[in-house]
Amino acid sequence: MLMNGEQYKESLRKLRPNIYKWGELIEDVTSHPATRLHVQSVAQSYDAAFDPEKAPIFTAKSHLTGETAHRWNTLMNSAEAVMGNSLMKRAQYRVTGTCQGATCAGWTGINVLWAVTYEMDKELGTNYHERVKKYFRYVEDNAFALAGAITDAKGNRSLKPSQQPNKDSNLHVKEVRPDGIVIRGYKAQICGVAAAHEIIILPGSGYGESEKDFCVAAAVPRDAEGLTIVETRRPSDTRDEEEGWDAPKAGNITQAFLIFDDVFVPNDRVFLCGEFKYTGKIISYFTAIYRAAIGACVAGQGDIMIGAAMNMARANGLSSKVFQEKLNQMAINNEITYGLGLGAMMAGKAHPSGLWIPDLLLAHVNKTQVAKLPYETKVIAQDISGGIAETGCFPSYKDFQSPLYGETLYKMLAAGSDGETRARAARLVEWLTVGGGIPGCMHGGGSPDGARLVVRAMEPWEKFAADAKRIAGITADLADPAPAKK
Amino acid sequence: MLMNGEQYKESLRKLRPNIYKWGELIEDVTSHPATRLHVQSVAQSYDAAFDPEKAPIFTAKSHLTGETAHRWNTLMNSAEAVMGNSLMKRAQYRVTGTCQGATCAGWTGINVLWAVTYEMDKELGTNYHERVKKYFRYVEDNAFALAGAITDAKGNRSLKPSQQPNKDSNLHVKEVRPDGIVIRGYKAQICGVAAAHEIIILPGSGYGESEKDFCVAAAVPRDAEGLTIVETRRPSDTRDEEEGWDAPKAGNITQAFLIFDDVFVPNDRVFLCGEFKYTGKIISYFTAIYRAAIGACVAGQGDIMIGAAMNMARANGLSSKVFQEKLNQMAINNEITYGLGLGAMMAGKAHPSGLWIPDLLLAHVNKTQVAKLPYETKVIAQDISGGIAETGCFPSYKDFQSPLYGETLYKMLAAGSDGETRARAARLVEWLTVGGGIPGCMHGGGSPDGARLVVRAMEPWEKFAADAKRIAGITADLADPAPAKK
Amino acid sequence: MLMNGEQYKESLRKLRPNIYKWGELIEDVTSHPATRLHVQSVAQSYDAAFDPEKAPIFTAKSHLTGETAHRWNTLMNSAEAVMGNSLMKRAQYRVTGTCQGATCAGWTGINVLWAVTYEMDKELGTNYHERVKKYFRYVEDNAFALAGAITDAKGNRSLKPSQQPNKDSNLHVKEVRPDGIVIRGYKAQICGVAAAHEIIILPGSGYGESEKDFCVAAAVPRDAEGLTIVETRRPSDTRDEEEGWDAPKAGNITQAFLIFDDVFVPNDRVFLCGEFKYTGKIISYFTAIYRAAIGACVAGQGDIMIGAAMNMARANGLSSKVFQEKLNQMAINNEITYGLGLGAMMAGKAHPSGLWIPDLLLAHVNKTQVAKLPYETKVIAQDISGGIAETGCFPSYKDFQSPLYGETLYKMLAAGSDGETRARAARLVEWLTVGGGIPGCMHGGGSPDGARLVVRAMEPWEKFAADAKRIAGITADLADPAPAKK
Amino acid sequence: MLMNGEQYKESLRKLRPNIYKWGELIEDVTSHPATRLHVQSVAQSYDAAFDPEKAPIFTAKSHLTGETAHRWNTLMNSAEAVMGNSLMKRAQYRVTGTCQGATCAGWTGINVLWAVTYEMDKELGTNYHERVKKYFRYVEDNAFALAGAITDAKGNRSLKPSQQPNKDSNLHVKEVRPDGIVIRGYKAQICGVAAAHEIIILPGSGYGESEKDFCVAAAVPRDAEGLTIVETRRPSDTRDEEEGWDAPKAGNITQAFLIFDDVFVPNDRVFLCGEFKYTGKIISYFTAIYRAAIGACVAGQGDIMIGAAMNMARANGLSSKVFQEKLNQMAINNEITYGLGLGAMMAGKAHPSGLWIPDLLLAHVNKTQVAKLPYETKVIAQDISGGIAETGCFPSYKDFQSPLYGETLYKMLAAGSDGETRARAARLVEWLTVGGGIPGCMHGGGSPDGARLVVRAMEPWEKFAADAKRIAGITADLADPAPAKK
Repeated sequence: MLMNGEQYKESLRKLRPNIYKWGELIEDVTSHPATRLHVQSVAQSYDAAFDPEKAPIFTAKSHLTGETAHRWNTLMNSAEAVMGNSLMKRAQYRVTGTCQGATCAGWTGINVLWAVTYEMDKELGTNYHERVKKYFRYVEDNAFALAGAITDAKGNRSLKPSQQPNKDSNLHVKEVRPDGIVIRGYKAQICGVAAAHEIIILPGSGYGESEKDFCVAAAVPRDAEGLTIVETRRPSDTRDEEEGWDAPKAGNITQAFLIFDDVFVPNDRVFLCGEFKYTGKIISYFTAIYRAAIGACVAGQGDIMIGAAMNMARANGLSSKVFQEKLNQMAINNEITYGLGLGAMMAGKAHPSGLWIPDLLLAHVNKTQVAKLPYETKVIAQDISGGIAETGCFPSYKDFQSPLYGETLYKMLAAGSDGETRARAARLVEWLTVGGGIPGCMHGGGSPDGARLVVRAMEPWEKFAADAKRIAGITADLADPAPAKK
Repeated sequence: MLMNGEQYKESLRKLRPNIYKWGELIEDVTSHPATRLHVQSVAQSYDAAFDPEKAPIFTAKSHLTGETAHRWNTLMNSAEAVMGNSLMKRAQYRVTGTCQGATCAGWTGINVLWAVTYEMDKELGTNYHERVKKYFRYVEDNAFALAGAITDAKGNRSLKPSQQPNKDSNLHVKEVRPDGIVIRGYKAQICGVAAAHEIIILPGSGYGESEKDFCVAAAVPRDAEGLTIVETRRPSDTRDEEEGWDAPKAGNITQAFLIFDDVFVPNDRVFLCGEFKYTGKIISYFTAIYRAAIGACVAGQGDIMIGAAMNMARANGLSSKVFQEKLNQMAINNEITYGLGLGAMMAGKAHPSGLWIPDLLLAHVNKTQVAKLPYETKVIAQDISGGIAETGCFPSYKDFQSPLYGETLYKMLAAGSDGETRARAARLVEWLTVGGGIPGCMHGGGSPDGARLVVRAMEPWEKFAADAKRIAGITADLADPAPAKK
Repeated sequence: MLMNGEQYKESLRKLRPNIYKWGELIEDVTSHPATRLHVQSVAQSYDAAFDPEKAPIFTAKSHLTGETAHRWNTLMNSAEAVMGNSLMKRAQYRVTGTCQGATCAGWTGINVLWAVTYEMDKELGTNYHERVKKYFRYVEDNAFALAGAITDAKGNRSLKPSQQPNKDSNLHVKEVRPDGIVIRGYKAQICGVAAAHEIIILPGSGYGESEKDFCVAAAVPRDAEGLTIVETRRPSDTRDEEEGWDAPKAGNITQAFLIFDDVFVPNDRVFLCGEFKYTGKIISYFTAIYRAAIGACVAGQGDIMIGAAMNMARANGLSSKVFQEKLNQMAINNEITYGLGLGAMMAGKAHPSGLWIPDLLLAHVNKTQVAKLPYETKVIAQDISGGIAETGCFPSYKDFQSPLYGETLYKMLAAGSDGETRARAARLVEWLTVGGGIPGCMHGGGSPDGARLVVRAMEPWEKFAADAKRIAGITADLADPAPAKK
Repeated sequence: MLMNGEQYKESLRKLRPNIYKWGELIEDVTSHPATRLHVQSVAQSYDAAFDPEKAPIFTAKSHLTGETAHRWNTLMNSAEAVMGNSLMKRAQYRVTGTCQGATCAGWTGINVLWAVTYEMDKELGTNYHERVKKYFRYVEDNAFALAGAITDAKGNRSLKPSQQPNKDSNLHVKEVRPDGIVIRGYKAQICGVAAAHEIIILPGSGYGESEKDFCVAAAVPRDAEGLTIVETRRPSDTRDEEEGWDAPKAGNITQAFLIFDDVFVPNDRVFLCGEFKYTGKIISYFTAIYRAAIGACVAGQGDIMIGAAMNMARANGLSSKVFQEKLNQMAINNEITYGLGLGAMMAGKAHPSGLWIPDLLLAHVNKTQVAKLPYETKVIAQDISGGIAETGCFPSYKDFQSPLYGETLYKMLAAGSDGETRARAARLVEWLTVGGGIPGCMHGGGSPDGARLVVRAMEPWEKFAADAKRIAGITADLADPAPAKK
């Protein structure tokens, strides 16, 4: 089923209000200043299905029904389909300048569960895959937006979930009943929940038997009983609630803390419960897709940073060509993360269930660059833009309304353009580089240090050493001694 | 004269209120949330004169009276004295985590005028140097804090000041009277004005004869008649006015737009008026000192970023030693800008007037690194800190006060420390890297591209080519052809 | 047809000797110290066709006959087939530590001509494609190794070929005869000629009508009448001719200067002659494939650098794990160029002729990284290895044979291994980083500045600016002013 | 005493031949191709004392006699005097393009012993300082060039000297006699020995009591009985012995392995013997001076790389201005290491003995950049120069003499200049970046990892954390937990 943006908003309004910010309940996510911008950006993705030019990117053919569906309601069953994820993400960033959580991690989550439950059923005789299939169909039939909740609050990083003083630090199964399970605990920094209908819950890590209770995958309605959602701050987030141009208003992200206070999940929405051996696979497949595609996210934001810097140069009275070499470097940074993600897809493999899984090593290498290159791109954007954009270094919109000196401020700002244009141009650069538009690509979807551990685990180090020995003509044994004592 | 922090605040309260933010007049800069943190940090520098441990850094012997004075009231008359500037700046950052404008650019400005007016008087027979000397004594006698106003609003970057549609885009002399001059126009992004007693005005660039009107150096009381000051925004600046720990409150910067609406300056406060040939020297000496010392600023903030990242690691439950290699890299970045600035001082020369002028080339090279390395340091701080700090990704202080879920939020955040400690640790990293604590080192004191132009102008390129020719044994002529046509 | 290494060498011996080094004719390329190592490495690629484990990489199904052929004798007719190019290149580097020219550029050249002649015949009614097809079949039937000659000697970089004082600076058509053409001029820095049977000649750039004479593509036997080949130096190349372990002897590259002194090429070997409009396409398709695949070359050498550094650490008596973070960074560098190349293939498109053409933008972005990351990898290899490897800082093999002190030298070198093992390990690092094993990836296949020009030409800059304007809420016109005058 | 270059060479010829290369004895270091270039470059430094323009850099006032002496015969007794070291080193590199060992480490060594023996005598009542003073005077009276031998052959990096299977792996005291000591063992990679009159021996590390035997500092004539010296290879070192322009011949370095086979050292040349507690100080003072000054070395070579790249661009037919931004970056890299070294001097302190000791932390930070930035500079030089320089990719000088094709080769190379000029320009770039001119700045004077350990040891980490806690308003204890188990 396809739904347009207005229908989508309407559907959100039907959900029970359980989201808070500033200590207060948000009655309507489609109009509250803290959430409406994200909803609005997702609405644009829904509308895109009806735009002939955008539809090929924002829709795909359903693997279940053969019908055209919103892309985020379909299985990524080929390298091209995973590349469609990248294309959509880059396009979404080009619309709003930032990230769109409600069509991202939840979608990847249900795709991954498609594959992992296939394996589980094969090996364990369970019927999880059938549940996923049924639920996937339900999602498509309702054209749902899905948030994905992986990251737990975690507690002390040196302790396992089962060792935490507060067991709620990680979401866990509190009780198994005949008709379902009761889950409890905290998920943190979950993107796009306010704009989603449902939440796909995945275990926060690959676990061993001792952490069995924390091994749970399920689908939960956003407004489930017992679930309380608290929106987080972003830099300069109060500006979203202010009048005027101190923040761009084309779209925005949300990230939330989720408090599960004994939430009941019926069996047909439970996709893994205690089968710890499969949690590692979930993480592995999830990161393979997510970290391949995330290169497109930061590339899309980078595209906007290029445009923002060009506008800023012009508003300052300079030709953007003066900065061509710097703009080029920004573009190169963008294309590296985008293209390296595509390379992971190219080197990927089809899973027996039909899911296409990008090459894990290349996906994780991409993550290390996603945690590096966009920051260089931001610095270049600030370099080009001048001091006015670097720290938002000019008065507030409110000051510009002052009868005493407001008009003078506009005159002060006028340069290659009128004062308001220059103000808007500068605020966009600020927002993208040190403001609310920062998507959090460093730790989003896991840390770069984690990615480096995967690189370490996957490269055939000893094979490299053996090849080099042969080339060097070394015949002696050359084993690794014990690490030097410190 | 020495003054303590309380006396300093008292002296500020006596000035006429002419500073605005959010469209409203700030009655008392020492208590208004937009300005009090900067005043407070400067007050600490005043108090330091009475702290035996800090006094050697925060005071110096006056070149005029031989008395102990606040360092920012003295002439930098040796390499060691300029190094004192660096030592003080690094120490100031260590106190508040950010920049302290009211003891910085104005001080450098009056130092530079000391030297340039010396030359002018020698060559032109003027008596500017005597005026500077008298004014310098007045500053010392009153233990003043001085802001320095160089950057004009500029207008269209492709046009000279005299070509701007709005002449006010650059501060200029509107009228020369027998007893003084009338100045008019805009200075922008001026640091520390709210905490200063006086403002040292310098021309925004080196100018030729056509720009004679814009060649003016003078000292103006902060509360001069005709002067209106509007404070600018910083990222997340509303947090300074909020209750709670969403922003650190140990000190902060201010930056302001200055509107000179026909301000009269009596002759003994005018230090240059139309002598365009000396404007280039002002810029040259100013940047030599400023860009040598600014390496200490970012090093000082880098020191705090190291500490903030260590605290964050610990609050997350990890040993900071896990990140030792990253911390080391942060430290190396800090010491490079600090040490390179010191190198410029080492290679400097004494001006006939007594001022020590650091090596211009090395000072500008330092600026290119100040515009680069702190950004890498910030990224490392975020990398170590985890997603919680990257975009301030957890709820507001207000949410933590919610009777409904506030206590749960504190439990969610608890990890290697209690929840509030972790929140504070995270907010500091956010503030330093994408929040109000960003000092604006990219364009502060001029752009890195400008520094690169100086590098280009000062390196003996043809001498390098000749040396290389000799070493290569090339005897043929090897002149530069015309640049390739594009 | 498949040929093994011995048969391949035999076939090379039948060619007329026309290759020189040190001013002397090389009678037998398979045994002369200047060329034998490259021949040997290509022979290993021939042998790989008969090794069940390697055959899938080193062979492919012919598009002409459907038979299994050496991969470098087949058309790259799918993304997977171009990826096969990458896989083979990385594997080849793992065998010898360096580049293998005779299975590289010529192969890509004939593939590109397959596509471009297809277009030419369609549009011009020529029969070039048929010639290419016939020649391609001839190559497959004889299992030939093909060098590819693109780079002209060029002469003065500021002048076009037709403006050069010496027309021979660029290869050109001297005469068109009924049965063929006579070509004349210089090609420079051509890789792998000594190990090839034939040379594919392509125009050195995209040309306009004025350069018609320089628009020629053809196939020439390596031993054609009138062709003189002079091998170039490499760093430390005399070591290849010395006894002992001062250079590794597992394989090596050759690069040559080609002097065409009126070489006649019969018509069925002429694939473009004066049709200047198609020269740009040749360059475009060639670089798309070449610069996508070259990422695998430097990744393969990077793999060996990892191994070499590990061996060096161990030979020094240290665990390679001490350097794990550095090794990881080397691996990340390798995978970026490898994976980004694959991304270009993923984003590629099928040409109507059947050739798969990788995405040009991503291929050129990859080139910018190929010109950057391997250099960082080399520096890390030297960092890990210690001073002994950095500049080859120990005596020669000859010194180690001294009856006076040779044995003592071996004792001096002994550390984590015996002295000879450590010497060999160090010489490999030296060879890879500052010796004969350097493949020349900076300018090989064109310069990184050229790649940046393509990036500049292909990014939709104005679209980025427009998107950013919309997001910023800017409605005013914001056109690019003229560039600021300098 | 001052000596000119010719007198210097004459004095070297008087020494007993005990240096070998290629397994053969070098009878005369001033004429043998393996050593003459280094001797020649040192001779130029001697001559500089008589050149009024250069004398201020190459000479200084002796602290012992008050006379003008060669700078390398004097005590560095002020920040300016240490800066003189930097100035001289940069100037020396500008003369030859590479390093000059015989006026470097030995000079620093005797300076360091001046200070350390001062401390020893104060604390232990020894008379070492008097010996140093007398020897220093002897050096000045004879205008000697001194090599400095620190690095031992070391053996297995995981074992201490006393644990090595071969005790000779590290130089040690074999016997203490009434009139002197007998030393034995290996020093490796010692720079400039062939051009020195004497060798200053220092312990290779800071040692504890167990390594007492290895704690020895002394001065040994280069031709001492029992000492055998073997010169090492450099990249492309055979070119030094070839005719023609395949290597520049303006000067070069030497590095040698030293075999001490029971060398007797009379007491007045022994400056430390078993006093292990002072070995750490020797290393500390030595590296403080050496690593501050080495920034000038690589800056000087970088200057030549700039010139070489400019010449190359012109020889290619392009204006060097096309590459101005890249040239600028090279210059910035040069000035960073130069200026940061000067910063270490600025922040240094006077030792009670009179020696000026640069700041250790900044000196070591400088070393980390010396091991990084010159490599980036090299890559830029290759980038600008084109493929011809990257791997020396054109035929040998010998080929250019071929009657058959030599003249044609010169025509092929002709571009913006005649062929020979272009060849010479290219060979210089090759020599500087991947050839014999590489100075080995990565590990010269110790490894960058060692420097990082000093940074780690010297930064006040916990103070940073405490400052950040205060700023964040954290009052809870926040101690470092145990490192996370792996």
